[in-house]
Amino acid sequence: MAMVCLSDFEAYAKKYLPKIAWDYFAAGADDCNTRDENILAYKRIRFRPRILRDVSMMDIRTKILGTEISFPLGIAPTGFHQLAWPDGEKSTARAAKAMNTCYIASTYSTCTLEEISAAAPRGLQWFQLYIHRNRAASQQLVQRAEALGFQALVLTTDVPYTGKRRDDIRNGFRLPPHMKLKNLEQDFEVCKMSLLDPSVTWNDIYWLQSLTHLPIIIKGILTKEDAELAVRHGVQGIIVSNHGGRQLDDGPATIDALVEVVEAVRGRVEVYLDGGIRKGSDVLKALALGAKCVFIGRPALWGLAYKGEEGLQDVLRILQDEFRLSMALAG
Amino acid sequence: MAMVCLSDFEAYAKKYLPKIAWDYFAAGADDCNTRDENILAYKRIRFRPRILRDVSMMDIRTKILGTEISFPLGIAPTGFHQLAWPDGEKSTARAAKAMNTCYIASTYSTCTLEEISAAAPRGLQWFQLYIHRNRAASQQLVQRAEALGFQALVLTTDVPYTGKRRDDIRNGFRLPPHMKLKNLEQDFEVCKMSLLDPSVTWNDIYWLQSLTHLPIIIKGILTKEDAELAVRHGVQGIIVSNHGGRQLDDGPATIDALVEVVEAVRGRVEVYLDGGIRKGSDVLKALALGAKCVFIGRPALWGLAYKGEEGLQDVLRILQDEFRLSMALAG
Amino acid sequence: MAMVCLSDFEAYAKKYLPKIAWDYFAAGADDCNTRDENILAYKRIRFRPRILRDVSMMDIRTKILGTEISFPLGIAPTGFHQLAWPDGEKSTARAAKAMNTCYIASTYSTCTLEEISAAAPRGLQWFQLYIHRNRAASQQLVQRAEALGFQALVLTTDVPYTGKRRDDIRNGFRLPPHMKLKNLEQDFEVCKMSLLDPSVTWNDIYWLQSLTHLPIIIKGILTKEDAELAVRHGVQGIIVSNHGGRQLDDGPATIDALVEVVEAVRGRVEVYLDGGIRKGSDVLKALALGAKCVFIGRPALWGLAYKGEEGLQDVLRILQDEFRLSMALAG
Amino acid sequence: MAMVCLSDFEAYAKKYLPKIAWDYFAAGADDCNTRDENILAYKRIRFRPRILRDVSMMDIRTKILGTEISFPLGIAPTGFHQLAWPDGEKSTARAAKAMNTCYIASTYSTCTLEEISAAAPRGLQWFQLYIHRNRAASQQLVQRAEALGFQALVLTTDVPYTGKRRDDIRNGFRLPPHMKLKNLEQDFEVCKMSLLDPSVTWNDIYWLQSLTHLPIIIKGILTKEDAELAVRHGVQGIIVSNHGGRQLDDGPATIDALVEVVEAVRGRVEVYLDGGIRKGSDVLKALALGAKCVFIGRPALWGLAYKGEEGLQDVLRILQDEFRLSMALAG
Repeated sequence: MAMVCLSDFEAYAKKYLPKIAWDYFAAGADDCNTRDENILAYKRIRFRPRILRDVSMMDIRTKILGTEISFPLGIAPTGFHQLAWPDGEKSTARAAKAMNTCYIASTYSTCTLEEISAAAPRGLQWFQLYIHRNRAASQQLVQRAEALGFQALVLTTDVPYTGKRRDDIRNGFRLPPHMKLKNLEQDFEVCKMSLLDPSVTWNDIYWLQSLTHLPIIIKGILTKEDAELAVRHGVQGIIVSNHGGRQLDDGPATIDALVEVVEAVRGRVEVYLDGGIRKGSDVLKALALGAKCVFIGRPALWGLAYKGEEGLQDVLRILQDEFRLSMALAG
Repeated sequence: MAMVCLSDFEAYAKKYLPKIAWDYFAAGADDCNTRDENILAYKRIRFRPRILRDVSMMDIRTKILGTEISFPLGIAPTGFHQLAWPDGEKSTARAAKAMNTCYIASTYSTCTLEEISAAAPRGLQWFQLYIHRNRAASQQLVQRAEALGFQALVLTTDVPYTGKRRDDIRNGFRLPPHMKLKNLEQDFEVCKMSLLDPSVTWNDIYWLQSLTHLPIIIKGILTKEDAELAVRHGVQGIIVSNHGGRQLDDGPATIDALVEVVEAVRGRVEVYLDGGIRKGSDVLKALALGAKCVFIGRPALWGLAYKGEEGLQDVLRILQDEFRLSMALAG
Repeated sequence: MAMVCLSDFEAYAKKYLPKIAWDYFAAGADDCNTRDENILAYKRIRFRPRILRDVSMMDIRTKILGTEISFPLGIAPTGFHQLAWPDGEKSTARAAKAMNTCYIASTYSTCTLEEISAAAPRGLQWFQLYIHRNRAASQQLVQRAEALGFQALVLTTDVPYTGKRRDDIRNGFRLPPHMKLKNLEQDFEVCKMSLLDPSVTWNDIYWLQSLTHLPIIIKGILTKEDAELAVRHGVQGIIVSNHGGRQLDDGPATIDALVEVVEAVRGRVEVYLDGGIRKGSDVLKALALGAKCVFIGRPALWGLAYKGEEGLQDVLRILQDEFRLSMALAG
Repeated sequence: MAMVCLSDFEAYAKKYLPKIAWDYFAAGADDCNTRDENILAYKRIRFRPRILRDVSMMDIRTKILGTEISFPLGIAPTGFHQLAWPDGEKSTARAAKAMNTCYIASTYSTCTLEEISAAAPRGLQWFQLYIHRNRAASQQLVQRAEALGFQALVLTTDVPYTGKRRDDIRNGFRLPPHMKLKNLEQDFEVCKMSLLDPSVTWNDIYWLQSLTHLPIIIKGILTKEDAELAVRHGVQGIIVSNHGGRQLDDGPATIDALVEVVEAVRGRVEVYLDGGIRKGSDVLKALALGAKCVFIGRPALWGLAYKGEEGLQDVLRILQDEFRLSMALAG
């Protein structure tokens, strides 16, 4: 089976992953309208291709928060990579480094931050966190990440409670016994119920800033009002995200929300996006609409499921090639 | 089979109810365009989710006509509950009371008003009525309801004649011999043909007001013009409804009609809605567009069909949980 | 099998008619876009239903060109009724008279005008004609129709050449040997190729007026420009029609074109419509948008195919009942 | 099997061509959105048909760059005709001449220009070219074409790199050993990788003009900006084209882009179009929106695959008949 485009990896993962793992990765909230809309929205956006421009030399490198990556696409935070591949997040970290791009490691990793960091020394890594009811635990995580060389904190803000993913409930989803949320003391079931603090507000950004010198990126913004608040609270970046459609159903597609966020931000901080990226031209569309960089979630997991770090590199390489070709053909 | 969302109850009811009963509950008029549009219209409405708001404490209680209910969702009037569960409307009444919400008992109940009332003493119950050709019969029903402690009258106005529901005609739908329209002297076939008075006009509201001290709610309004007329005739509430798409086909979805009704009413009376509510976020959308409370029809019957009052409580609890979660995730 | 709505008759005809006849009646030009659009366009038109109006007495009779019919729906001209039922147009004429409505007999009838007229003495009948290359033949037909008591001439104007109906070509459609175009000397194949005059223009209306005292109705108008021309040339009525989507594909649905025609005509002549009427509420929509009366084509043939004049009466009765109910429910 | 419309030829080709050849001809870039949109866009364009115009005599001839053709449709440049029919481009040339229309021979022909020219002496032939990295090779081709009597040069501008056609990658598409790109020294694989020059810009138009007296037509324009540039650079014609959706996916349908190009050009040069033409009324729509002539790509190959030059003539004749009929029916 030739792996030509991301759908091939998706089909592979659907076929070979245990159903409970596939369902968990694929899940969207409620009717999955937002999950699907993330993808459909790209199809409504049309290029205006230009011709006869010299596209023999194209530089697709970019910088995010001052660090160069090989092309404007990184790996979004997703949990439980060992469900996709035995080495879990260590493989993810290696692939990201090999492709010279950014990996946002999730709090819900099945490897420790120390293992992730050691797997890709000097790779560009950011750390995704939630604010816990137990603030000391959050503080400890932040300081651990900073000490290990993670270069930014990505605060996920759209999970005051976990979204309702029907298949996970039907499957009674839980981690297999040999996997652990190694960065937390609790096991997953406990975390899901009680770890996260639903009373977090914008003021907690100040608290977070007091803990760390790392730049802070807010993930989960979908409106101009929240974009403005983020800038005013002194964050360094915004990820336009709806959590892959796994939290509130019937919100906007991220590529649609991007436009108003970019307009509100007016260049004061960098704006990124995740959700629905499935081919290189999707990346180009997001950049044309003002994103500095995009991040992939599920496609990274499909790559892992296919062949671990090698499979993920395949996914990244395909996206990179498609992105470059789209740029050339769009002039 | 896990009962995770309302579709699960729908699938159960479709599988286990006698076809003639399922068809009767599911029926829409003509091509069922309006029945289906009631649901589809919600999918076109998108949230603008806000983040970093303190959603640790949320009060989802509300008051309708001054009485508190546990969350803004009640049970719309539908007929023939014994088709779904042996105890019929008595079970419905018990479930509504257990969940501390409002039950609008139908004239076409297969239990007497006295039985319904006794099944849930001190539960919040309203009584739905039609104006009959025989006004004395209507008067008697109104006064019986008032005496029994029903707290409002819901006048259904969109049935001057019964809508054309093709499957019911094909099935030759009629009640099984052991069920009766216990609140009426006639049997169903007679009622359908001749009971209701198609000459009823706004003036009859005055007549109804002269019979009772109960507040009067008009059910079946879909336009701003009729909303204005309702307010001017001194009613206490409006239910935006198209009878679940069972009367005139090709009218608007109720969630679409809600907007113009709310705007016309300008807060002078309470505005409710029924039709197409299938998940908690639908409730939130209706409230965001100005409804004070919504009511469910078919989903209540699916709950009954599943496990009587217990099944209906499951349905209500799922909607309540989903509603609360949507509110938190939408900020 | 209960015959509840027009789809039931359609399914019956599709099942029991010879394929070549079904295909001929069902055919649309090219990709059948316009044929299908005629129906789909109705679904996009929504009622604004009003309540609490006295609908106990409704008069659905109307007058077309001064003659009363039982409800605003007649039978459009279609050819070859013997393909649907042995008695052919004689049955059609009888059904129309029994239901007290108007029948437009086609030039391509398989019964003579004399037979059609005799089958329904004193029934309201109009005669549809084309202008032939051989003007004397046209003149003779007009005068025959007038002498027999047909009360109007309906000039079809959208067939300078026959539309491309793919299935008819594949089937090598032709009339069975025992059927004849009895009102013409030539047989069908000859007619199709050479009978009609593609050079006809508006001036020929004057010629037609010089031949007869009958009112003249133009069938095939889809634009305001042609509507204005028709009025200026002194016709008495317009049928908005695209020949059931059998001529030019990719023109507008008739219900969509109706609006601009009605606006252009400003009441100076009566405006009718055919195409896509499948339930009583379609009739109501057309009337609400300004049509004085509508005509059915294929559904009449399905009725004939079911049970001859009795089947056609069933179709008309269903439409009449649905129309009356829609009116009541729409207030 | 009757060959009634172009879909019949498509079905035939799909059935009888080797899969690898069918896939190559059918391929679109990435998700094939643009390929499919080329066709879908026509369905959104509606005629406003006029009646009672004299359509007995219609002249459908036109002139392109001063030369008369029998109707406004020619054959677009496509490669590898021997994949469809043993005689390859010689058959194409013969069919075009027999139908008195224009054939644009591709650089990627499997016959030599000399063979193509000799197959249809005095036929109207244009030559499609790319600008190669090796400019001398391009120059030689241009001068060979001019010497052979080709009457215009069509410069394809939307292939700085080849689009990503997934099926071709899966199939490992390459020419069978007995076929050659006879006009080039290299074989196909080499060409694909390295022949074309991605650094070509508008200035190279001047270079091309210096080589030849032939008129130059730019193929691949989709925006008003590039249309203006083309006119300013002194070209004689524009083909609005997206390479049949084989290059950049998610660009506009050509019939949609045509409108802005025609408006920008304001009659200064002739504007043509290819992409999505599947029936005669598509041609009429393109002409109504300002195209002087249209060209067919895949349908020509289906015709070849059916019966060589005879099959292609069938395709052209069907389109011609349909075009004429559409004109008559649209008035």
